[in-house]
Amino acid sequence: MFYFTIDILGIIAFSISGVMMAMDKKLDIFGVFIIAFVTAVGGGTLRDILIGSTPVIWLEDIVYLATILGTVFGAVIFRSQLKYLRKSLFLFDTIGIGLYTMVGIQKGVAIGLHPIMCVGLGTITASFGGVIRDILCNEIPVIFRKEVYATACILGGIGYFLLEKLPLKDAYPYVGGIIIVITVRLLAVLFKITLPNIYKTPKEV
Amino acid sequence: MFYFTIDILGIIAFSISGVMMAMDKKLDIFGVFIIAFVTAVGGGTLRDILIGSTPVIWLEDIVYLATILGTVFGAVIFRSQLKYLRKSLFLFDTIGIGLYTMVGIQKGVAIGLHPIMCVGLGTITASFGGVIRDILCNEIPVIFRKEVYATACILGGIGYFLLEKLPLKDAYPYVGGIIIVITVRLLAVLFKITLPNIYKTPKEV
Amino acid sequence: MFYFTIDILGIIAFSISGVMMAMDKKLDIFGVFIIAFVTAVGGGTLRDILIGSTPVIWLEDIVYLATILGTVFGAVIFRSQLKYLRKSLFLFDTIGIGLYTMVGIQKGVAIGLHPIMCVGLGTITASFGGVIRDILCNEIPVIFRKEVYATACILGGIGYFLLEKLPLKDAYPYVGGIIIVITVRLLAVLFKITLPNIYKTPKEV
Repeated sequence: MFYFTIDILGIIAFSISGVMMAMDKKLDIFGVFIIAFVTAVGGGTLRDILIGSTPVIWLEDIVYLATILGTVFGAVIFRSQLKYLRKSLFLFDTIGIGLYTMVGIQKGVAIGLHPIMCVGLGTITASFGGVIRDILCNEIPVIFRKEVYATACILGGIGYFLLEKLPLKDAYPYVGGIIIVITVRLLAVLFKITLPNIYKTPKEV
Repeated sequence: MFYFTIDILGIIAFSISGVMMAMDKKLDIFGVFIIAFVTAVGGGTLRDILIGSTPVIWLEDIVYLATILGTVFGAVIFRSQLKYLRKSLFLFDTIGIGLYTMVGIQKGVAIGLHPIMCVGLGTITASFGGVIRDILCNEIPVIFRKEVYATACILGGIGYFLLEKLPLKDAYPYVGGIIIVITVRLLAVLFKITLPNIYKTPKEV
Repeated sequence: MFYFTIDILGIIAFSISGVMMAMDKKLDIFGVFIIAFVTAVGGGTLRDILIGSTPVIWLEDIVYLATILGTVFGAVIFRSQLKYLRKSLFLFDTIGIGLYTMVGIQKGVAIGLHPIMCVGLGTITASFGGVIRDILCNEIPVIFRKEVYATACILGGIGYFLLEKLPLKDAYPYVGGIIIVITVRLLAVLFKITLPNIYKTPKEV
């Protein structure tokens, strides 16, 4: 129940980020809905397709569609107020990627993948919704350019497997991984930490 | 046989819409073929991948490839005449999306999905070929911007499930759904009906 | 072992082509890695998804990830020297598409597809990594515009099936197909052969 609530918060935050991008591009209401939808479920869908877990989950559980539809209508109606929510949205989004990362890792563990590939699967779950959103909106995906986003997922995933080696209860590594993702991303944004720049000569850096 | 003929007409119409877009972008003959191909089968392919129905159908039945190849060669040879076919093409295309919608719905019903998700699957079947075409041609998909296209599919799909509740023969809801899709789209184009504009203040609307 | 070595050479060449494109677009190091990754394994991944062979291979064998990671780090560190490798890279890349084509064909044969669709599957394996790379980088895929790339794969694939009809040992058609792909592409580049231009009037051509 607790996880499920966070999951729904993640979907809401991702949907709203899709709505905001789609409205920047002046898409019509159907386009806004589709962009919100792929942002929220695109990462998990790609993960499920890659591992062959089909039909994908949002086809089988209507709560995903209902949540996204409700969010899109709410976000479109209150669109002029969205900017005041920016901080809450960022928080939801950050919690969402933490949870999505762990969900992806669990799926990989369940089918016996190598821990490194599980971390990859978690990162895909958390970040490829945004990649598909950007491609559909004809942008180079933002996480390829300036976000410490995937890095947070990867570190959280590594943290999960390290914690799992310790004699802890089952939920600890899971929650620990989520906390690492959230912490890394918050710190990166607060202190404007970015990935090392590879386009300057050493001297300029 | 009747359905099959319409199916082929839909593939032809979709292929030609792909050829026209690809030639606008000055792609070479291989690019023109690929764009025609994904426009014609992309929606059904995405649907089959999402539900796990693989190998996808055009790998198993060569009639798809043959039809598209023939259409592309014909369309390229008679490219200067294509503009005179615009109305026929629009009609084929509209019949095609009606049929594609129903094919997608049937596939969802067959694996026991919720009717709402079946309608979604029908809409994906009918509209995502065009979405993939636009992405490959580096455009924001046209159906996210100005077409009452997906809306026609959704209304047709809802009509199908309503008709199915009535004591009718099997084919009636199916044909009824197709007629609704076609009617909605024709009326929308004739009367220039679009989705409500969400970018103006209430006063301007 | 021999095939495996060539496979790795192909992955390295494809990864480097991804690195070069991503660096042209000024992506960050994570973006560079993802573009290299999809260039190297995207074609095979699409193939496996289309035929339902999941989990896709790079999730199950960590050698793909390791090779690509190593290549990306090497390529980024020696980025100013990459231009001197252009000819070697072109050769690796050409060998790589030859091998990828045959791997895709074998997969199609193994599930009983029609030879024409096997050739299609081989071509997808060899060429769609580059297509996905270009889409992620917000470009119209280069093979739709000016490369005799897919054509080489198709001719090599046809050659494979013709050679297979002859009373030869198993490996001959396989190697023969690869040689045809390589030869066609080398000749096309050497003699600047392109697909027929469909945008000029017959007189201009």
